[in-house]
Amino acid sequence: MTTKYEALAKDIEALIASGTLAIGDRLPSVRDTVAARGLSPATVFEAYYLLEARGLVEARPRAGYFVKAVPAPREEPRSATPHQGSRPVAIHDVAQAVLGPVRNRQVAPLGSAFPAPELFPLDRLARGMGAAMRRLDPRQLLEDLTPGNAELRRQIALRGVAQGVSTGVDEVVVTSGAMEALTLALQAVTQPGDVVAIESPAFYGCLLTLERLQLKAVEVATHPRTGVQLDSLAEVLRRHPVKACWFMPNFQNPLGALMPEDAKREMVALLARHGVPLIEDDVYAELYFGAQRPLPAKAWDREGGVMHCSSFSKSLAPGYRVGWVSAGRFAPQVNRLKFMSTLGVSVPSQLAVLHFLQHGAFDKHLRQLRAALAARQQRALLAIEKHFPDGTRVTRPEGGYFLWVELPDAVDAMALQQAALARHISVAPGSLFSADKRFRHHLRLNVGHPRLEQLDAALKTLGRLVG
Amino acid sequence: MTTKYEALAKDIEALIASGTLAIGDRLPSVRDTVAARGLSPATVFEAYYLLEARGLVEARPRAGYFVKAVPAPREEPRSATPHQGSRPVAIHDVAQAVLGPVRNRQVAPLGSAFPAPELFPLDRLARGMGAAMRRLDPRQLLEDLTPGNAELRRQIALRGVAQGVSTGVDEVVVTSGAMEALTLALQAVTQPGDVVAIESPAFYGCLLTLERLQLKAVEVATHPRTGVQLDSLAEVLRRHPVKACWFMPNFQNPLGALMPEDAKREMVALLARHGVPLIEDDVYAELYFGAQRPLPAKAWDREGGVMHCSSFSKSLAPGYRVGWVSAGRFAPQVNRLKFMSTLGVSVPSQLAVLHFLQHGAFDKHLRQLRAALAARQQRALLAIEKHFPDGTRVTRPEGGYFLWVELPDAVDAMALQQAALARHISVAPGSLFSADKRFRHHLRLNVGHPRLEQLDAALKTLGRLVG
Repeated sequence: MTTKYEALAKDIEALIASGTLAIGDRLPSVRDTVAARGLSPATVFEAYYLLEARGLVEARPRAGYFVKAVPAPREEPRSATPHQGSRPVAIHDVAQAVLGPVRNRQVAPLGSAFPAPELFPLDRLARGMGAAMRRLDPRQLLEDLTPGNAELRRQIALRGVAQGVSTGVDEVVVTSGAMEALTLALQAVTQPGDVVAIESPAFYGCLLTLERLQLKAVEVATHPRTGVQLDSLAEVLRRHPVKACWFMPNFQNPLGALMPEDAKREMVALLARHGVPLIEDDVYAELYFGAQRPLPAKAWDREGGVMHCSSFSKSLAPGYRVGWVSAGRFAPQVNRLKFMSTLGVSVPSQLAVLHFLQHGAFDKHLRQLRAALAARQQRALLAIEKHFPDGTRVTRPEGGYFLWVELPDAVDAMALQQAALARHISVAPGSLFSADKRFRHHLRLNVGHPRLEQLDAALKTLGRLVG
Repeated sequence: MTTKYEALAKDIEALIASGTLAIGDRLPSVRDTVAARGLSPATVFEAYYLLEARGLVEARPRAGYFVKAVPAPREEPRSATPHQGSRPVAIHDVAQAVLGPVRNRQVAPLGSAFPAPELFPLDRLARGMGAAMRRLDPRQLLEDLTPGNAELRRQIALRGVAQGVSTGVDEVVVTSGAMEALTLALQAVTQPGDVVAIESPAFYGCLLTLERLQLKAVEVATHPRTGVQLDSLAEVLRRHPVKACWFMPNFQNPLGALMPEDAKREMVALLARHGVPLIEDDVYAELYFGAQRPLPAKAWDREGGVMHCSSFSKSLAPGYRVGWVSAGRFAPQVNRLKFMSTLGVSVPSQLAVLHFLQHGAFDKHLRQLRAALAARQQRALLAIEKHFPDGTRVTRPEGGYFLWVELPDAVDAMALQQAALARHISVAPGSLFSADKRFRHHLRLNVGHPRLEQLDAALKTLGRLVG
């Protein structure tokens, strides 16, 4: 028999599942629900607690309950248990073949790595950049090269402080996007032939960088919702001479996994005991759907062993190529490598971002961006529920714009990718996300790039192609 | 006994030496000189031929004779004969120590690598960038990442064609300045531990890149006016397993040397016979003082073995970080590396440069820039003549903004650098320009950065410090 509070919870769950209540929406207040349904306050509270326990809503102090995720009529993908060996990486050719067509404007870009550029305040950025450049002291064009504009670095450090990271401005190096930050961080602590621990599945940008730097990968098991599994990491550290870890604790690409705070703290402590640096790729953290930005692992770093890498490419200014690394005790090495490589970052790009930060519009823009991405995720999950066959498993991340889909075992994702492309839909097949090309029946779907009607149609077509 | 034409030539030489006739100025026409001095046209022609033979003036068809260089009361520096071995490079720490203080605004930046930013059309660039960004289709922000904006690449290829280089647009990769272009080119054809042939002296950026990539340097002898000596290059190719050459045939940094066309052609042929790729650093070619842009070595490349690297940082847009490589037959490898490293170049920066090229203001700006740099060189040479001790030797390059000064043997340039810095003058000591830190009594002086009055005063002080 269903109790009253279970019935209420079920009603609300259905409203969320149908998209009537969107991620980020406030639930009706307890008082209103009592009045509307003739229930006791205790019953309403019970229902809300139940929804909270299921991960669908969260309480925000003095504000009420808010929708955080959609119900999961689909199971989540199974945990990945990688091979135990370390191996060289050779992923470039498949990456090139798969990612090339993403740029074709005729193609619905579910295989893209970027959110739709239309979601960003491009006009305002351009105007701010123009204003900043016109009043620029010409000498700054040279002074703002490595390690970057001093005020921009200070703003980055300040945002870090607000997230519990005591980053000195001296350890911040501005880079050409996060990719350069991550590459410099990796080069600061490795030599060709060294072993680097990565997640399984891992972002192909990570795999490409390991390939370029001739490093070997050893993969760590993950959970699709909570990311790096610490017992697997401990095992890898025991078995392999790991020189660095490259992880994404917040909204991992492709899983969207979010490591719990305890796990982050333990991971940082474990790595510190082994003296292994952590390269933290944190480019998606600002795209959370909940109440608060998740903390970076660097918030628990007391020994400067975490190199925190991020950028504005996914949060504010795509194509401007402004990223950074807070390099902890490795800042001198990173600075040195930066000086010996690209010399410095486009000054107009740096000033465009700085102008936006200084004029206070960043947080407002982020709120709009998060709401847009959450709505797209919800819509995509509904479409997958409707159109994909039984046995399909899918994540429902609490931030970002990727879904990781585990299709029935018999499906060949590379063949599916080809078939989808013939119908003008790009997807990222799972093989891109592992050094040994596992995840053969998985897809990463970008739900933040296609236009909404394109997203629905593309997922319907994809579902049919799966079978 | 001095003949009439010799006397006339001597008068004109004095006018050039004093700065009355500036580099780029037209000599009085033969007709005017005949009328003014009561000489025969043949005598005037003889005088002009003599000045031409001395390298001071050049004839331009249907336009007359123009001042090309100042007379050299100082001898030119001696040719450099490097050690014959190959060796690892470790130059970073001295480079960092020397180059750091260049940014201090109190310091006269004769040690800088950049011309004065005030010499560039910064307002117009900023306005063009603003206009281009405001009418941008947002999708371009992602499409213009690697290999770069298609129209910008076409404009770059077209400028190449005008210089005798048949560059297909497909081999042009836009990079974060020339430094990234050169690094990618070098990585495309080498592995750590390989031997690379460089000039002696060589640009410290080249040495730093070799250091970062763990490559060994073997140095090739140069002439201070004509650059790479082919017999030395041939010897190096015989003795060492050279995997690539990194040379600057046009206005080499630090010498300012300009390889004659015949030498460039022979060099390209010699390297083709050995199957050794040439990485051509051509960032200064647009800054010529004569009638025509000197051709790049790539103009003689028939086998795609020359990777031509350049940028707009020294010619149009300092701090924008827009460079490129025309990578010949190595374009696929370079594209691959670019894709695996910084992903792409700031789109606002690319569009700023493109807008300027499309609206036709680049060549006009370059004419003004060249005239300004030539005037500064002339002024600096006069000051050195006046203030530096006997035994000082100095180049008088036909382009660019560096002078290479060979001081009397007893002078220690590193000590001089320290003493100069105490007087708020930076210089680049010769030790920065060699893997084995030779050139201990040499300086590279940037005459294109300091303000003019600062330049005079700084050279006077420097001359006193030398002794």
